[in-house]
Amino acid sequence: MKAEIITIGDEILIGQVVDTNSAWIGEQLNRYGIEVFQITSVHDDALQIKEAISQAAQHADLVLITGGLGPTKDDITKKVLCDYFDCKLVLNEQVLEHVTTMLSRRNIDINQLNKDQALVPEKCDVLHNPNGTAPGMWFEQNDTIYISMPGVPFEMIGLMEQAILPRLQKNGKVKSIYHQTVLVYGVPESMLAEKIEPWENALPDFIKLAYLPNQLMIRLRLSAYGSNKEVLETEVSQQIDLLRTYLPEQIFGYNNDSLAGVTGQLLAKGKLTLGIAESCTGGNIAHMFTENPGSSVYLKGGIVAYSNEVKEALLHVQATTLEAHGAVSREVALEMAQGALDALQTDYAIATTGIAGPDGGSEEKPVGTVWIAVVSKKNQTVHCYNFAHNRERNILRSSQAAINQLRQLILKENPVLA
Amino acid sequence: MKAEIITIGDEILIGQVVDTNSAWIGEQLNRYGIEVFQITSVHDDALQIKEAISQAAQHADLVLITGGLGPTKDDITKKVLCDYFDCKLVLNEQVLEHVTTMLSRRNIDINQLNKDQALVPEKCDVLHNPNGTAPGMWFEQNDTIYISMPGVPFEMIGLMEQAILPRLQKNGKVKSIYHQTVLVYGVPESMLAEKIEPWENALPDFIKLAYLPNQLMIRLRLSAYGSNKEVLETEVSQQIDLLRTYLPEQIFGYNNDSLAGVTGQLLAKGKLTLGIAESCTGGNIAHMFTENPGSSVYLKGGIVAYSNEVKEALLHVQATTLEAHGAVSREVALEMAQGALDALQTDYAIATTGIAGPDGGSEEKPVGTVWIAVVSKKNQTVHCYNFAHNRERNILRSSQAAINQLRQLILKENPVLA
Repeated sequence: MKAEIITIGDEILIGQVVDTNSAWIGEQLNRYGIEVFQITSVHDDALQIKEAISQAAQHADLVLITGGLGPTKDDITKKVLCDYFDCKLVLNEQVLEHVTTMLSRRNIDINQLNKDQALVPEKCDVLHNPNGTAPGMWFEQNDTIYISMPGVPFEMIGLMEQAILPRLQKNGKVKSIYHQTVLVYGVPESMLAEKIEPWENALPDFIKLAYLPNQLMIRLRLSAYGSNKEVLETEVSQQIDLLRTYLPEQIFGYNNDSLAGVTGQLLAKGKLTLGIAESCTGGNIAHMFTENPGSSVYLKGGIVAYSNEVKEALLHVQATTLEAHGAVSREVALEMAQGALDALQTDYAIATTGIAGPDGGSEEKPVGTVWIAVVSKKNQTVHCYNFAHNRERNILRSSQAAINQLRQLILKENPVLA
Repeated sequence: MKAEIITIGDEILIGQVVDTNSAWIGEQLNRYGIEVFQITSVHDDALQIKEAISQAAQHADLVLITGGLGPTKDDITKKVLCDYFDCKLVLNEQVLEHVTTMLSRRNIDINQLNKDQALVPEKCDVLHNPNGTAPGMWFEQNDTIYISMPGVPFEMIGLMEQAILPRLQKNGKVKSIYHQTVLVYGVPESMLAEKIEPWENALPDFIKLAYLPNQLMIRLRLSAYGSNKEVLETEVSQQIDLLRTYLPEQIFGYNNDSLAGVTGQLLAKGKLTLGIAESCTGGNIAHMFTENPGSSVYLKGGIVAYSNEVKEALLHVQATTLEAHGAVSREVALEMAQGALDALQTDYAIATTGIAGPDGGSEEKPVGTVWIAVVSKKNQTVHCYNFAHNRERNILRSSQAAINQLRQLILKENPVLA
């Protein structure tokens, strides 16, 4: 089964919102072995939407459409679908009841715009949208399935998970695709490519390798194609075992793992606790750990010590150290980490101090200079990094480098956790 | 001038990466008055890439292509371009020198894969990529411009800003489009639509309105089309003044403002300081403030008090309060905020305590229950929210609600800052 995704909305084409819906849908369909052939984003323009739908139907037997179903006047998808399938809008009582219930639960009086959301093209099956007032719509014509969904991501996700994917699974005649992604940190892309070249060259024909670098890591995606899913899984798993021998320290996880999540799991497994002292990363390291469910098991707390006063008052950094070396220094990073270990009473502590930018840099310490310290009761590591990017990237790269430095110290002290 | 964007990469279609490049490019072109007609994402497949390029060239006189230029074997865009423009790859000495310099600066030995990045189609103008080893490529044929760029976002951005946009600006015969976006918090979309209906209905024909809701706010985008940019600017600005009278408290900013950024500016303007005590938001509020340059002026620090021990030790929450009311309670939120005000010696403090999920909920306090307190030296506000979403959304929504609660108290106490 081949699919195409059409996302509708001027806001996408002028770059006001990033189209995250397509990525989410692509990932889900892929798991079901449905290949997404193309993603197309078009304006809230009747002619262009119709054109995109008919072009998609030429390649695909499943056309997924998001956007343009809101209560407001700029949203025209429903009218276009009526036109495309040559039918009219009719009132759906169940949708009307759902809209009424949803709004009254939020103490909002129903108005004409809300009521109009219960008008649906008469040729569609209505799909219940538990998270919003615009329903999903399922059409079938000449062996092609067309589905229209709201563009609000969590409404679209609810519809896909609860109504569309289960129904597609029943219909499906699908070939097997099996993906696994290996996550690598701490080696640049071309060096990585060279390092694993013999392994890559020896991959069997039915396994495809892709390098997916981003700011936080390099992801290596192995995709296996064939008829027998179990065979694909076994072969991919063996290839990954082999790959590990090339990158024993750099591979930190798989698929949707994050470095913070994996490192948190090491702490939880070893019944170890963590405290964080952040200056330039401003709370982002704590956020990267606490995004993960269960982080309260190992994370006792963090101190965002943005001003020197707070560094002194809460982390007991010495005023003389700040004066002698400046806030961005090896010495202050170490005192901050030690201060967090003491104040938060933990087994490990991370500290960051640097210049995130855009201001505050000097010739000696340019924007992007970051000192990162990690301490335990027995050991300490401290490194200086030069990221030299914009503020957002400097914060992100510093956070990730700090978490990796922690991961390395945990594994050195507790090899049994690896 | 009309443009189309083509993003290349299997990783986009299987949803492994979100295509943020298109949004960024769309936003930039829009500023230059270049309309993006369509965005298309295709596989690393020679036939499909060629097909997408020729289709795009039918609608557009500018075709922007990203992706598929990496040093590794899955990247085939360069070969496809040679085929499309009927030419061969030739070695470019300047690119080779740049690749060599870049790698040696990072202490990486050059290998054959790196050297091959200096091979470029002979019919293109090479565009210098300061941030990476793959150059940009500019082709012209039958009055259409085709530009190929790497898919790594910051490399693409560097090329666009330093080479492509300046050159397009010289070539451009463009019509005027003028956008302004008004940012609204604290009113649901359909209620908003009803509230501003008279204003919306009275908008002149050449101004288009779009509602762009996301998890953090509703954005109202006004787009004016015409020949005289100054007329458009004046009219849009007058319409926005009128809109403000309908939403005096809910409009908090414009365009790329964030609620944290705007609130931080209020603090800076009033020479006021902020401290943050976070439990369920786990550092995210501090992160949302410190993302903004200049936040060190008003943010003295934050305490992520994930464990009760840290709540007691650093924020001086009473053990008896924790016992009597539980950590997720009005009383603990208030003591945390007061504790932060005292420990960090600030004019304002925010505190959050709640159940982010997925675990930890109960019948009385389900997942998504969050108490948020904001205190100043004279006043305090405390509210309970029920977000009832997944962990990520609960953290984000709680953070934004807390920042808005702070904004309201600042404006109440300091109306002169509005």
